[in-house]
Amino acid sequence: MKKDQITTPALLVDLDAMESNLHCMAAFFRDRACKLRPHFKNHKTPLLALKQVRAGAIGMTCATVREAEILVSHGIGSILIANEIAGDTKAEWLADLSRHASMIVAVDNRGAAADLARAQRDRKTQIEVVIDIDIGLNRCGTQAGEPALDLARFALSEGLKVRGIMGYDGHLQGVAKSPERDELIRQGSKALVDSAALFERAGIPVSIVSTGGTGTHAISGDYPGITEIQAGSYLLMDTIYVNRGAPFQRSLTVLATVISVKESGHAVLDCGVKAISGERGLPTLKDAPGAQLTALHAEHALIKPEPDSRVKLEVGEKVELWANYSDATVNLHSHFYGVRNGQVEEVYRIEH
Amino acid sequence: MKKDQITTPALLVDLDAMESNLHCMAAFFRDRACKLRPHFKNHKTPLLALKQVRAGAIGMTCATVREAEILVSHGIGSILIANEIAGDTKAEWLADLSRHASMIVAVDNRGAAADLARAQRDRKTQIEVVIDIDIGLNRCGTQAGEPALDLARFALSEGLKVRGIMGYDGHLQGVAKSPERDELIRQGSKALVDSAALFERAGIPVSIVSTGGTGTHAISGDYPGITEIQAGSYLLMDTIYVNRGAPFQRSLTVLATVISVKESGHAVLDCGVKAISGERGLPTLKDAPGAQLTALHAEHALIKPEPDSRVKLEVGEKVELWANYSDATVNLHSHFYGVRNGQVEEVYRIEH
Repeated sequence: MKKDQITTPALLVDLDAMESNLHCMAAFFRDRACKLRPHFKNHKTPLLALKQVRAGAIGMTCATVREAEILVSHGIGSILIANEIAGDTKAEWLADLSRHASMIVAVDNRGAAADLARAQRDRKTQIEVVIDIDIGLNRCGTQAGEPALDLARFALSEGLKVRGIMGYDGHLQGVAKSPERDELIRQGSKALVDSAALFERAGIPVSIVSTGGTGTHAISGDYPGITEIQAGSYLLMDTIYVNRGAPFQRSLTVLATVISVKESGHAVLDCGVKAISGERGLPTLKDAPGAQLTALHAEHALIKPEPDSRVKLEVGEKVELWANYSDATVNLHSHFYGVRNGQVEEVYRIEH
Repeated sequence: MKKDQITTPALLVDLDAMESNLHCMAAFFRDRACKLRPHFKNHKTPLLALKQVRAGAIGMTCATVREAEILVSHGIGSILIANEIAGDTKAEWLADLSRHASMIVAVDNRGAAADLARAQRDRKTQIEVVIDIDIGLNRCGTQAGEPALDLARFALSEGLKVRGIMGYDGHLQGVAKSPERDELIRQGSKALVDSAALFERAGIPVSIVSTGGTGTHAISGDYPGITEIQAGSYLLMDTIYVNRGAPFQRSLTVLATVISVKESGHAVLDCGVKAISGERGLPTLKDAPGAQLTALHAEHALIKPEPDSRVKLEVGEKVELWANYSDATVNLHSHFYGVRNGQVEEVYRIEH
């Protein structure tokens, strides 16, 4: 099947670019003590997770119990939920999954830890936890040092297995590389490693110190004591990361069709916010010099020719858009079309 | 099942509010010449479409061939695709659907009309069209008057059945009511009705003149010659329309769980842009006076207490968020939970 025969709007991954990203990241971790546990929330695609594990990843990171369930059902044996779990029956759901894989989950408060402990007792399973430390994102996470140790002791007293520590520096992922940024990344890694040393001195063995993303992996991955990196976006890449000098290529686009053209050259695509996220700014056109995207509606994108452009899009023509925000864009689709040299080579199912 | 037992994040519809909206809109059209053909793209939920038809709607409007397919498969007999169709095999897909229902589709250019005509010849079916006229949205649509008539004649010469005219005043839907706004709505309706008269004088019978949305239905629905209104959002309602004085109530919320709370009272919900759209601004909290939503990440919402608030959310607590943009929020979910008095009464499947 040729790329242009795909019914639009559709999610495409450029296989050459995606494989280059896969191997570039795998090469970085090949001879390092620190390992890669890629974040599943970015692509939510089991076949891509399996490619990442075959390339050397030690397991997968994810954000929700549902994502962990998808990974378990595809044979991934070690899963870190790098997020807090609370409410309804999520702790029981997680306990049930821990029969099938090593299930490690972040905790940052006693209530959630007590719920997890109750669920593992009820279900007669073993849940593993990492203490989540806020290293500057100001989202989830307890404080480094004594508060983290206090929570680890509580988790142990409840019967949970404490594997170590995590902290996510999401606030630094999209920041351009500079000595100041690199120093902030190291400070975050240091807070985690210092807390791990405190755990060890208190007799709590630490086998996991997890942090980092696509924008910060190279600094944290070299910081002594960090054992694994949670990067996910590197495979598909967001425009925001490309513009920050990350060594990966964008591989994710949305294919759309021109459905209407005005005399002025203004064109309309069959692709709005239901098919491509505008949450972090408007998408851009991949191969249409002389035109730019000016607005996203629910079902439409509006394209305006640049002032001196002679390019005129035609009704029925296919156009590719760079996705600015891969997490939110993948979330809108059920399939990826893997494309090389204009041909569809593979179709991947995205799981929700 | 109680509302608080639903696994989060989840999409809720308040049944009292939704039914009130359903009956309020049905009452408006009951004794009018103009009728309601609600837009399916808003809720994408066959059971809600069937409620709308039972309440008096003459069929459904939709935006894509896939939505038309869903409606056909649920027994809706008359469907208007109020959008242009172009590229790949969409014309053939549409022609195949026209064996099962009256399929009416918007056209604004000769190329797309020729494609539809070719598909209906190949498939030996009958596709019906309305000429789409741009009445100020500056998106799709040809010009009123002679250009519209010229396209109608072309469509007829190709063997398509021309049913009439449509034009969507999307640019006026969110504008606060004023004499100037009402006059702009009437001008749009007049352009459509005048073009319809031109068609009739040229010997082309017009049975459909479709326009309007939730924000403009009351003006266009009273304009002589407008035969049907495409309003969709009225059932669930967007915050933007509520703030513009529409006579409907918001019925759509997303249920989320507090997963982390800091000493400062800052809280984190398990609900980000993958579960509630931020495309038209941040969602707001439904029943949490003293706190406001300050940011949406991929999987999280951040909540900040107001300066003098004594409210403190607790981990595990459930919170409801008003969806600012119902189209884009519904698109993120597979089910609606219909809730009344804190109990789940119905579960609706959303089709994609």
